[in-house]
Amino acid sequence: MVKNVGWIGTGVMGLPMAHHIFPLATNLYLYNRSPEKTQSLVAKGATLLSSPAQVAQQANLIFTMVGFPSDVEEVYFGPEGIFTTLQEGTILVDMTTTKPSLAQKIATEAAKKGCFILDAPVSGGDVGAREARLSIMVGGEKEVFDQLLPYFQKMGRATLQGGAGKGQHTKMCNQIVIAGTMVGVCEALLYGERSGLDGKTLLATIGAGAAGCWTLDNLAPRVLQSDFGPGFMVDHFVKDMQIALEESERMGIALPGLALVEQLYTTLQALGGGKLGTQALILALRKLNSNE
Amino acid sequence: MVKNVGWIGTGVMGLPMAHHIFPLATNLYLYNRSPEKTQSLVAKGATLLSSPAQVAQQANLIFTMVGFPSDVEEVYFGPEGIFTTLQEGTILVDMTTTKPSLAQKIATEAAKKGCFILDAPVSGGDVGAREARLSIMVGGEKEVFDQLLPYFQKMGRATLQGGAGKGQHTKMCNQIVIAGTMVGVCEALLYGERSGLDGKTLLATIGAGAAGCWTLDNLAPRVLQSDFGPGFMVDHFVKDMQIALEESERMGIALPGLALVEQLYTTLQALGGGKLGTQALILALRKLNSNE
Repeated sequence: MVKNVGWIGTGVMGLPMAHHIFPLATNLYLYNRSPEKTQSLVAKGATLLSSPAQVAQQANLIFTMVGFPSDVEEVYFGPEGIFTTLQEGTILVDMTTTKPSLAQKIATEAAKKGCFILDAPVSGGDVGAREARLSIMVGGEKEVFDQLLPYFQKMGRATLQGGAGKGQHTKMCNQIVIAGTMVGVCEALLYGERSGLDGKTLLATIGAGAAGCWTLDNLAPRVLQSDFGPGFMVDHFVKDMQIALEESERMGIALPGLALVEQLYTTLQALGGGKLGTQALILALRKLNSNE
Repeated sequence: MVKNVGWIGTGVMGLPMAHHIFPLATNLYLYNRSPEKTQSLVAKGATLLSSPAQVAQQANLIFTMVGFPSDVEEVYFGPEGIFTTLQEGTILVDMTTTKPSLAQKIATEAAKKGCFILDAPVSGGDVGAREARLSIMVGGEKEVFDQLLPYFQKMGRATLQGGAGKGQHTKMCNQIVIAGTMVGVCEALLYGERSGLDGKTLLATIGAGAAGCWTLDNLAPRVLQSDFGPGFMVDHFVKDMQIALEESERMGIALPGLALVEQLYTTLQALGGGKLGTQALILALRKLNSNE
């Protein structure tokens, strides 16, 4: 069976992911806003096209992995978007972290055209994408999910969380936990600095018990080395937290911890830290507590 | 050499800890506000006395494991406190989680009397105490720490963090991280409930990645089962967070995340949840987001 696969979005995450699924495609049709970033795939035989609409004319399985919810809107609903040319029976997979409500809107539109969509945001970052160790959180129909499993398995580990939008909701839960662990870890590091503790001894001691977390193991040591490179970029994390807060408000719930952390990261952006890694939160906390 | 050891405080934590060190003592002298709680130690041959002062008359190594900073004040500085009868050369070990500034105050007073003190708060809870798997965070002189190692090894794993008060500061860092992970995990669980996710699938999915933490592994499953028993009691956690906030203020730093979590737990106390486990934070968040 001929597999005409489309891939839209070949950034830091999308490019390695597209390489991983390439072997499953008879033909791979690409679109990216910066066409030069598709080069390594074109060199392998993929076809570069000049709009999402053109991709949707060729492919009956289309992955999208772009940046912000506004980019997803453009790629699906824009004047040269997927929905202008979408063929009946096509399967769409949006792997961008975006609004659960947008995922549902795309699902409704896709159903009208006799198509199927999964929302399938990931966690694991650029390293997870390169090493095919992403955690893929999927919302949509089980039959469609099962069909897509061979593709997901090329990129990491996928789990079906429920119907349309549930993949995005799961990703939001993931980010809400991380917001908490980040503020806890960075405030503890600041307290440790100011009270004269040795950072390495501190981390080794508290990391083994009830304070143990991925953030403490993986990001706190970078703070001790003043390494603030991403990892996961502040601007993207703020986007995710804003989506989670917007969805929470839509559901009528207040999440005061998340709201506070989002504001602290907004401070960090104001300080010019938007392109740093999330562990740079301590820079905002230090600034907040300095008299400079 | 005759080892006359004193133990003050035989509550949920102190009792199993005293049992663990018993074999190292030639004589064990006990004091507890509720004398009946020392029964199992007396049955083994320990001597129950009726004040900390009496203990300090008999013992030249004294452990204290009581409740609140005010209890520590009473046990050391009260009219029947340790300092009224303390013999020169005695080693004091306060294992209560208390104020770093109080630890320093005790150290200053002890030095005046030619005595030594370690502050050595623990983490690991009642289970860690029973199973001798406590993490013991120690502040004080290295020579004294080295002498006490055989005792600490009977209770868990000890690490020297620096001079007087540094054990308490380390414990504060531990609690600050936990405050963050608790609010992140409980807000994520609330978001998950309201957005219709399956709790078990959610935890299994996000626990494996960057959101992974002890709280998610150990306390979130209890929330799913509506098991709000302690574990670690809300009233004690609030005490710890208040100490951390007070010390932060003394050092001239604001920790907005910690302050918020402390306020949320105060809400939980107002709802009658003071004797529940820390995972009951979700009850305060649910209440905050209900129209009852």
